[in-house]
Parts: sequence; C-alpha cells; structure tokens
Amino acid sequence: MMGEQLVLGLDLGGTNMVGAALTTEGELVAKSKMTTEASGGLEHVLGRMADCLEGVLEKSGRKREDVLAAGVGAPGPLNQETGVVYTPPNLPGWKDVPLADELNKRLNIAVFIENDANCAAYGENWLGAGRDFKDLICLTLGTGVGGGIILNNELVRGVDGTAGEIGHLIIEMNGRRCNCGSYGCLEQYGSATGIVTTAREIIEQGEKTVLTEMVSDLSKLTAKDVSVAMERGDELARRVITQTGEFLGVGIASLVNLLNPEVVVLCGGVIAAGEALFKPIRETVEKRAFPVPSKRARIVPSVLGDDAGVTGAAGVALSRAQRSSE
Amino acid sequence: MMGEQLVLGLDLGGTNMVGAALTTEGELVAKSKMTTEASGGLEHVLGRMADCLEGVLEKSGRKREDVLAAGVGAPGPLNQETGVVYTPPNLPGWKDVPLADELNKRLNIAVFIENDANCAAYGENWLGAGRDFKDLICLTLGTGVGGGIILNNELVRGVDGTAGEIGHLIIEMNGRRCNCGSYGCLEQYGSATGIVTTAREIIEQGEKTVLTEMVSDLSKLTAKDVSVAMERGDELARRVITQTGEFLGVGIASLVNLLNPEVVVLCGGVIAAGEALFKPIRETVEKRAFPVPSKRARIVPSVLGDDAGVTGAAGVALSRAQRSSE
Repeated sequence: MMGEQLVLGLDLGGTNMVGAALTTEGELVAKSKMTTEASGGLEHVLGRMADCLEGVLEKSGRKREDVLAAGVGAPGPLNQETGVVYTPPNLPGWKDVPLADELNKRLNIAVFIENDANCAAYGENWLGAGRDFKDLICLTLGTGVGGGIILNNELVRGVDGTAGEIGHLIIEMNGRRCNCGSYGCLEQYGSATGIVTTAREIIEQGEKTVLTEMVSDLSKLTAKDVSVAMERGDELARRVITQTGEFLGVGIASLVNLLNPEVVVLCGGVIAAGEALFKPIRETVEKRAFPVPSKRARIVPSVLGDDAGVTGAAGVALSRAQRSSE
Repeated sequence: MMGEQLVLGLDLGGTNMVGAALTTEGELVAKSKMTTEASGGLEHVLGRMADCLEGVLEKSGRKREDVLAAGVGAPGPLNQETGVVYTPPNLPGWKDVPLADELNKRLNIAVFIENDANCAAYGENWLGAGRDFKDLICLTLGTGVGGGIILNNELVRGVDGTAGEIGHLIIEMNGRRCNCGSYGCLEQYGSATGIVTTAREIIEQGEKTVLTEMVSDLSKLTAKDVSVAMERGDELARRVITQTGEFLGVGIASLVNLLNPEVVVLCGGVIAAGEALFKPIRETVEKRAFPVPSKRARIVPSVLGDDAGVTGAAGVALSRAQRSSE
C-alpha cells in the first residue's frame, strides 16, 4: 500500500521554485519548475506554490487521495513544528507566515516545512551521495554556505530548529566580517562570495591574472569569472580555488572532529570547480583532523545536484507523515 | 526492583582514579579515591581499578548481585562497543587494552567504557547542570579542552566513537600550533595551557604585571599563577582571563549555531575563574551567534564538579545495561 502512495516536494527559492512527486520508495514520478515571482508578494507566491504542487500532481497522473503528504524546503529562519516561516531575506513581504497551514488550506494535503539546506542534506541521505550512510553532514556552497547535519538518519534540528548553520562556524576569529554580524564565518571563505573576496585580495597584491583583462571593474567580479579564468589556465584563479578548498577543509576538519560522520556531501554551484576544489579540501582535512575520523569521512560531491532540495523536501514529508501516523 | 540496584562508576585519570556507587535513581551511596600509579604499568593499574570498584562496593554495604553494571571513564582514544582502550598518552604501557573484558574478568560485573569527557557530559545531563535538558554540550577545561555532545539525552559518539572533540574545533586557522598537528584549535586558547600562552604573549609585549614578580622564570608560569595575580588585582591577569573567555566564546558561538543546544556546561579547573571568565564567554556568544540559538543556550558551570566524570561513568553503565537488556 505504502509503495503506491506519493509524496510531493517543493523547493522554494527567491528566484525559482521546483516541485516534484516521488513514490514513497523514492522513485521520481514528475517534476516541474516555475519562477517564484517573489516581488508579487506573499499571496501571489503562495498561489504559485499551490499551483506548482497541483501541476506536479497532475503531471504524475495520480489523484489527490494518493498523496501522503507534501514537504516544502524554504529559506529560514522557520519553525518546523508550527510550520511558520519567519522573515526570509529573499522573500519580500513575508513575516511569520503559517506556510504549512496556508498550503494545506489551498491543497487539502498535509504539508510540512523544513529549512532548505536541511532538505538538501535529507535528500542526499535518502537518495543521493549519503544513501548508504546514517551519519552525514551536507554543505551547500552557493552565494552563502548552508548546512544540514544528519545523525542516525535523522536531521539534527536543535531545540528551536535552527541547528545546522555550518556557514557560521567561525574559522578565523578576527577574519572577514560576515553578514550575520560575526567575523571569520566559513560562509565568507567557502561560498561564491568568499571566492570573489579571496580573488580580490590576491589581485590587489598586484599579481598578474587574466581576470583583470576579463573584468574591467573588479567590483563586478564573480565566482564564475574565476572558474572561467581557471579553465583558461590562469594561475591566480587556480590558487583562489585551492585556497577556497583549504578554507573549506578547515571548517570540515572541525566538523569531522566534532561529529565523526561517515560522509560529508558538498552541494551547490561552487562544487563545479571539481577536483581543483575537492583535492585541497581532502588534503586539509587529512592534515588537520584526527586520523580515525578523518580516514572515515568520505568527502564527496552531491549526487542529486539541483534536485537535492526538492527530493529532501519530499523525504522530510514522508518521514514526518509516517511519524505522525505512528 | 530497578530502584534497588546499584551502578558503579570509575573515572580513570593519569594521576588519580575515583570510584562511586550510585542507585539507578542517581543517589550516591559510596565514593572512593585512589592514586592510579600509572608508572606501575598495565597489570598494576588494572588491579588498582578492580580494587577501587571492589572497595566502593564494600563501602556501599551492598552485594555484588545488587550491581547492575559498572562504567569506566577513560582517556581516549577508545572503542565503546568493543571496550578497547587504544593508546592513552597518560597511561604508559597501555596499547589496545580490552579494558571492559579485563575488568569483567576480575570483578564478574558487566563493564562498559566511555571517553572521560563524554562521561562528564553524561554526568551533567543525568544529575548535574543539564539534568532538566535533553540537548547539551559539555566542555571540560583543564590542561586541554575535552568535550561531549548530548542530543536527545544520548551521547553523540559518531561512527567510530570519536565524536565530541570540541577542543579541536579550529577557531583561528593560522593560529597557535596544537599537539594534534593542526593550528588554532580551541584547546590552545581555552585551556590552562592556553591561559599560560596568552599570558606570556601579553607579558612579552612588555606590560607591567605582578606575574613577573611572582614567577621569576616565565617558562614555569601556570594558569594558577594567573588566577592568583587576578585575585590580587593585577590588570594584565584579568585581561588574560577576559581574552580566554572571548576565545571560548568564539568556539561556543560556533557550537551554538551548529547544534542549537539548550545548555552549554563548562567543567574543569579553569572555571574556577568564575564570572571573570563566564561574562566574556556569554557576551561573545551573544555577539557572534544567531539570536534565537544564542538566546536559548544557557552557559553555566558544572554542578557536579570533580564528580561529573565518575557520575557519568555510572550513568553510561546504567544506560547501556538497560539498552542491552531490552
């Protein structure tokens, strides 16, 4: 019976949303992508979210009665228990939105919400790079650094649901200023933003690089420019990626000492740098973490890629629906 | 029935060992302290450990049949499942010792072993500063910095049992060299050793302090000297303790962002500095961690003091005996 039911997932971003329908066994049945149109305001976005989920259900060719539950991965801060999203910076007009209830009202389906980085971690654990493991740490390396921690196949949420903020591990106590108000957070070193900062710091020392030819105004430099320069054989760009890997390695070494996980999964746009990034990460962890946990922790790229979040959102819905029916 | 049974605990240190007998309800029935005589070698220490546990049982006035199990908190690295202690630096001649089996043979009691800092965390959660909470982080601030993480009233051990190495969270990536081979580990800043390093760094800048009068050879400076100087109103000594608190606050801010615990318990000799240490810790966490988890996390001193380890060792034995009889 359970195998015939569906779970829906929705990954809500500031620009796009992705919906998916999966069987409870984790088989993808349908998927659909829409723009978020965040500037349209709360009601507009809620309507689009409902449309996206309706659309994916229709695409699946199944009926509402077949749906066990839906899960939404949303930018935090949020409360998983009450289903309320507080004030996500990328969604103007959102304040203390009872998202789970609002969608439930529109869809007549049980809805659960979860932090988007936690969803990515859960997705990788359910069906991705961490599927054979029970203790996993996931870092999403995009504009910022997000994270999710899974122990014993369960998300570590903490008492208020805010746990997993790996981007705000302090790796350099008097380091770069972070948007969170602190200094030296991993996010300022291991994200696309961090790559740009590191590149600018090195360029300002007057070293030669194609980046100064590619980008006339360095205040407009992007992480993508750095990748392109590296592909073109630029030494400085490669060094920026190596340093970024070392920075990430420092943070991951701390996590490995702290939690002794089986696997550390890296997701997000930044991992496109491939071995140029993973090699210094692995070398740094090996050098800086204790031998036993360092040898244990595989450090691997995401298998689900952009689908980690939506897959995990569906997985969270499945897990919570099963738990609440126990 | 259960309430009438006893659990024994033993906290094994390089210099002393402490044994205790508690009821399964957590009431202390008897306690006993002995020197470890580590230089006597493995067999000698094993004999003393058995004597210590026998002694405490005798003191309790109860019989062997009343004992549910015994727990030993030992310096790591060790394996909780197999009961083997690998190569503890403070116990010469110990290598891959099947400690649980050896004590079981001598005592005919089920024996479980656990990392000593994990025992302190478990003790504080069972009967100490964390007894009303389920998510707790414990730091032991002594010569080094140890740690234990408890989520949902269970120790986080990691897949190899090495989790909880809070002392080796990197807070300054190019910072002080650590004995573990890495740089900038919390242990080098928040321990008694760290206090001495910080004091020396400031003294070498030529500032005035009673410490230079108290200690003619600065290579022999101790954390105790710094406390004494602070009590005597020495400004530099107070600044050393403030900085130590700030360093610890940086590490704890990361932990608070990562795990969103209810309480952070500090144990060990270093906490004798009291408010002079706790105030900068709390202020730093408030400044550097996210508001919700920062507001949540109480940062408090140990309630059990030196007994945290032995209490937790007994508690671990109780928990594991109950689990294995399920």
